[in-house]
Amino acid sequence: MAVTYDDVRSAASRLDGVAHRTPVLRSRTLDERVGARVFVKCENLQRMGAFKFRGAYNRLVQLDESQRRAGVVAYSSGNHAQGVALAAQLLGIPATIVMPSDAPRSKLDATRGYGAEVALYERSEDNRAVIAQRLCEERGATLVPPYDDERIVAGAGTATLELLEEAPDVQAIVVPVGGGGLFGGACIAAHGIDPAIALWGVEPEAGSDVQQSFQRGERVTIGVPATIADGLQTQSPGEVTFAIIKEHARGVVTVSDDELCEAMRFAFERMKLVVEPSGAAALAALLAGKIAVAGTAVGIIISGGNVDPDRYAELLTRAN
Amino acid sequence: MAVTYDDVRSAASRLDGVAHRTPVLRSRTLDERVGARVFVKCENLQRMGAFKFRGAYNRLVQLDESQRRAGVVAYSSGNHAQGVALAAQLLGIPATIVMPSDAPRSKLDATRGYGAEVALYERSEDNRAVIAQRLCEERGATLVPPYDDERIVAGAGTATLELLEEAPDVQAIVVPVGGGGLFGGACIAAHGIDPAIALWGVEPEAGSDVQQSFQRGERVTIGVPATIADGLQTQSPGEVTFAIIKEHARGVVTVSDDELCEAMRFAFERMKLVVEPSGAAALAALLAGKIAVAGTAVGIIISGGNVDPDRYAELLTRAN
Repeated sequence: MAVTYDDVRSAASRLDGVAHRTPVLRSRTLDERVGARVFVKCENLQRMGAFKFRGAYNRLVQLDESQRRAGVVAYSSGNHAQGVALAAQLLGIPATIVMPSDAPRSKLDATRGYGAEVALYERSEDNRAVIAQRLCEERGATLVPPYDDERIVAGAGTATLELLEEAPDVQAIVVPVGGGGLFGGACIAAHGIDPAIALWGVEPEAGSDVQQSFQRGERVTIGVPATIADGLQTQSPGEVTFAIIKEHARGVVTVSDDELCEAMRFAFERMKLVVEPSGAAALAALLAGKIAVAGTAVGIIISGGNVDPDRYAELLTRAN
Repeated sequence: MAVTYDDVRSAASRLDGVAHRTPVLRSRTLDERVGARVFVKCENLQRMGAFKFRGAYNRLVQLDESQRRAGVVAYSSGNHAQGVALAAQLLGIPATIVMPSDAPRSKLDATRGYGAEVALYERSEDNRAVIAQRLCEERGATLVPPYDDERIVAGAGTATLELLEEAPDVQAIVVPVGGGGLFGGACIAAHGIDPAIALWGVEPEAGSDVQQSFQRGERVTIGVPATIADGLQTQSPGEVTFAIIKEHARGVVTVSDDELCEAMRFAFERMKLVVEPSGAAALAALLAGKIAVAGTAVGIIISGGNVDPDRYAELLTRAN
């Protein structure tokens, strides 16, 4: 049950009028720095502040009536929690999100603000997957995985579809990669339109599981990476997503935390965009010259903008 | 020589392909908070980070050949400096910007970065208007005023023209007002399309010169207001701009510095937009319920996003 270009197109129809059609922005300063025409797809301006809403909604809207009544469960300390919570709220589906008790208050509040029940667990004592599984069994609820799911991937792919509608002549697309949902969706969407487009993934230096997997041709698992990019701290790519990446990607590059900080700062100063560390990965790769794009047109995705004010202030001024 | 709707339309043609057509964003959270459908025109995403580029370019592009050769002079410690510098660079016109010696390094650097010559003066000793006038006389150069000029106003009006193209059913438009260039342009553009649209200006509580002037029906001059909104620290509206405001505006409301901070924080958290204090005035007025817009469609302009990282971090976390 592979993800197809038609799945992405169907997801786009389902999301029409529900997700924001986020803007594709240009910056002459960015173009000059990179030596290319850069088209910036701003998924930080998506509902709930990240692309995650696309996949979550595309997954939930395809549940049947009895599944909807039984509700959904997800575990996440990040954007997936809010994506599922918002999608569930819009569809009238009860949602329970399993979150660590030490998650930032802003994330707990935001998830509850979308009407979801939050089930807290202790990081040191409990296994969140086990908790979520038990909740699903007790209630007959559906577990919504963060990325390793065909409908989540197809939903995420709609961001790239929109990018290519606005910038049809890009020769390369650069995307942050954690579990591979956004990147996998980008591969399917882009190559459904033009198989010559080069797809690049970007992950943090400290967590190069996707790069290693891509080089070896099989999924590699690493320890939890220490990086400011909290949304990209995956230990291995997904099964569904890696199969896509292996087939379609041109390559995977890494960026350092300092390079992420510099990109966040560039987005602040030159583009007036709030970008979270993970969301800045593709921009960081271009600014640091990690991918040869000189003289071409290139699309990048800013994947999210959810970062606490104190943390943002710290990272922004750290790069001074 | 009044500013007409045709002047705004002509300015739009001149700016086509030169200025960014900035996005008009929506936020469900904002709509819920305000109780209205709010359309947010993001001039913080304009080239050089503020609407000022529109007016400056529309002014400079209409200089004749000999005027262009003789160059332009402006005085500003803020966005007007960068707007003139960038417009001059694009048109190959020599520009000199008179700036205070204690201006933030980032603004001096940005102005020089656009190729302008910076003439420094001491705030305590020199009169910047006199210095600028002398430079103009010595060189035969043209002084470019920040707002009190028909072509500057017409250029600024193009932001409202674009807003109304994206959101044709708005019944009210809310705009930050300092000298009145943006607001005056909004009046001409909006009433050229539909005279029933209500035009509201917003200025800082501490600097209510435009509100006082509007109430009295004549220009009032106040002392330099103490406010974080450094772009709105004018002491009186302009002659050209006040004549327009007097004729077209529905009213002028004020917001406190705390309300500006809260609006900056809302833009950060909920819209992922970097907004400078002055730029947040219209958003602040809506969030603070200063204008009765419930149940309607309303357009607002975010006028700029140029703020130093340290200052931004301070204002963002102050509102905690």
